[in-house]
Amino acid sequence: MAANKSPARPATETASQPIGVFDSGIGGLTVVKALRDLLPNEKIVYLGDTARVPYGSKSASTVERYSVEMAKMLIEQDAKIIVVACNSASSVALPKLEKTLPVTVMGVIRPGAQAAITATRNGHVGVIGTRATIRSGAYEKALRALDDDVRVTSRACPLLVPLIEEGWLDDELTDHVIARYLEPLMREGIDTLVLGCTHYPLLLPAIERALGSGVKLVDSAQNCAVAVQEFLDRQQVRAPAGAVGSLEVALTDSPDNFLRVAKEALQLDVGEIRVREVLYGAAL
Amino acid sequence: MAANKSPARPATETASQPIGVFDSGIGGLTVVKALRDLLPNEKIVYLGDTARVPYGSKSASTVERYSVEMAKMLIEQDAKIIVVACNSASSVALPKLEKTLPVTVMGVIRPGAQAAITATRNGHVGVIGTRATIRSGAYEKALRALDDDVRVTSRACPLLVPLIEEGWLDDELTDHVIARYLEPLMREGIDTLVLGCTHYPLLLPAIERALGSGVKLVDSAQNCAVAVQEFLDRQQVRAPAGAVGSLEVALTDSPDNFLRVAKEALQLDVGEIRVREVLYGAAL
Repeated sequence: MAANKSPARPATETASQPIGVFDSGIGGLTVVKALRDLLPNEKIVYLGDTARVPYGSKSASTVERYSVEMAKMLIEQDAKIIVVACNSASSVALPKLEKTLPVTVMGVIRPGAQAAITATRNGHVGVIGTRATIRSGAYEKALRALDDDVRVTSRACPLLVPLIEEGWLDDELTDHVIARYLEPLMREGIDTLVLGCTHYPLLLPAIERALGSGVKLVDSAQNCAVAVQEFLDRQQVRAPAGAVGSLEVALTDSPDNFLRVAKEALQLDVGEIRVREVLYGAAL
Repeated sequence: MAANKSPARPATETASQPIGVFDSGIGGLTVVKALRDLLPNEKIVYLGDTARVPYGSKSASTVERYSVEMAKMLIEQDAKIIVVACNSASSVALPKLEKTLPVTVMGVIRPGAQAAITATRNGHVGVIGTRATIRSGAYEKALRALDDDVRVTSRACPLLVPLIEEGWLDDELTDHVIARYLEPLMREGIDTLVLGCTHYPLLLPAIERALGSGVKLVDSAQNCAVAVQEFLDRQQVRAPAGAVGSLEVALTDSPDNFLRVAKEALQLDVGEIRVREVLYGAAL
């Protein structure tokens, strides 16, 4: 399990620091949405690496390097915890981030795996995600660490993110692509499916249509937000009940069409967007 | 028109230098294939920016910055001409590259536009490409510069690259996506369609199926190779007939599944792949 680093400052001071969230792009806003609903008093600073999106098709060492750069930019904004709202980055960069950063790092893999183990009845879990996430085997490892006997069937679904970014959320063509990706998993007999990419909750109705009622869905964004809440409570560094929560969104490239799609689908008020240049190899 | 810069060295010496080709990823290999067929005696060095692919969804200023970094790495390899085998980069970065680089820069837009003007009978040309290419209006500008009266109908097709990278080249689902993108253009009455993305030639049979026989296709990769040949002949810096041509491929991230798809579809022998780190802001 990720080592929880106790903040050096007094808990009351740390409590008012922001939660830092990063993602390869816009998809991580599904985690932000879950955090805002669950922790309305927290300040959240979000950083999306839209200048280099997607991470899911890139090598582990490149994703690791990008993730450290993003996290360091959030640490400079005084983040009390770093949430890796990206399955690709969580899959391959978590050990490096935990070694490098002075605060606790929360990924989306472990909370998702935990929820899947709780949900499955027949012990057969399906996982869908980007190429990087599936190739890493991170969900299999996390699931097996919790239950030796679990059976895992995984599938990379590289077309789902572009379909979501095109805004074809409720669309016959998207339904066909989802059916092609999911049919082999259903034939194998999964009873639980982990949405192992923070974009995928935007396709929830379409995925539910494809699966029918026999398969339970595990949303890694939602479970990650719950894990963050538990951590803040355990460390007693949650923002006080009277505090005014806020959301600040920064991207490494100017926003495009997909930000509009995401804001509408999530009903999320993101205010003004800052564009920040990546600090290459910045010292912490 | 791009200013042709005469090489400083004697033409015989320049002739033996390589042609430098860069792209946001692997798609530019369609240009390399056309160059190899047309100019078999040339040495070609190819650089694909797979660490930051795709360029097509990113802002003009980010694509400009990445393009200059890629071109500088090719200049360091002594390239006698820089071929921008990427429509997104050609659309937005050509002026900056021409200002910055000491050699001639050849993009894919102008050769494609020239071929479309030659091909059209009814004066109505369609253009498909990435979001960055279509948003830039570069094809419209190039087409209008050649013929004031041309009518242009453009459409961004952001799903085609992911479909190609998934390897679904001859596939009913891909046919449906293509039909959705192309039907409005056909209804408007185009008689010529520019494939404004170097990936798209890999979908040539599928696009021909969707269009039927009434619409002529213009492949920007092929026309770019012809323009390179004409330039080398004009400057008398073509490799001598007896020279042994070669191809050296380098990528900024380790290759994935799509390199295999492209090599097979193009029947291209790329040998061993080098992985090179990007030189951020490198001085020329």
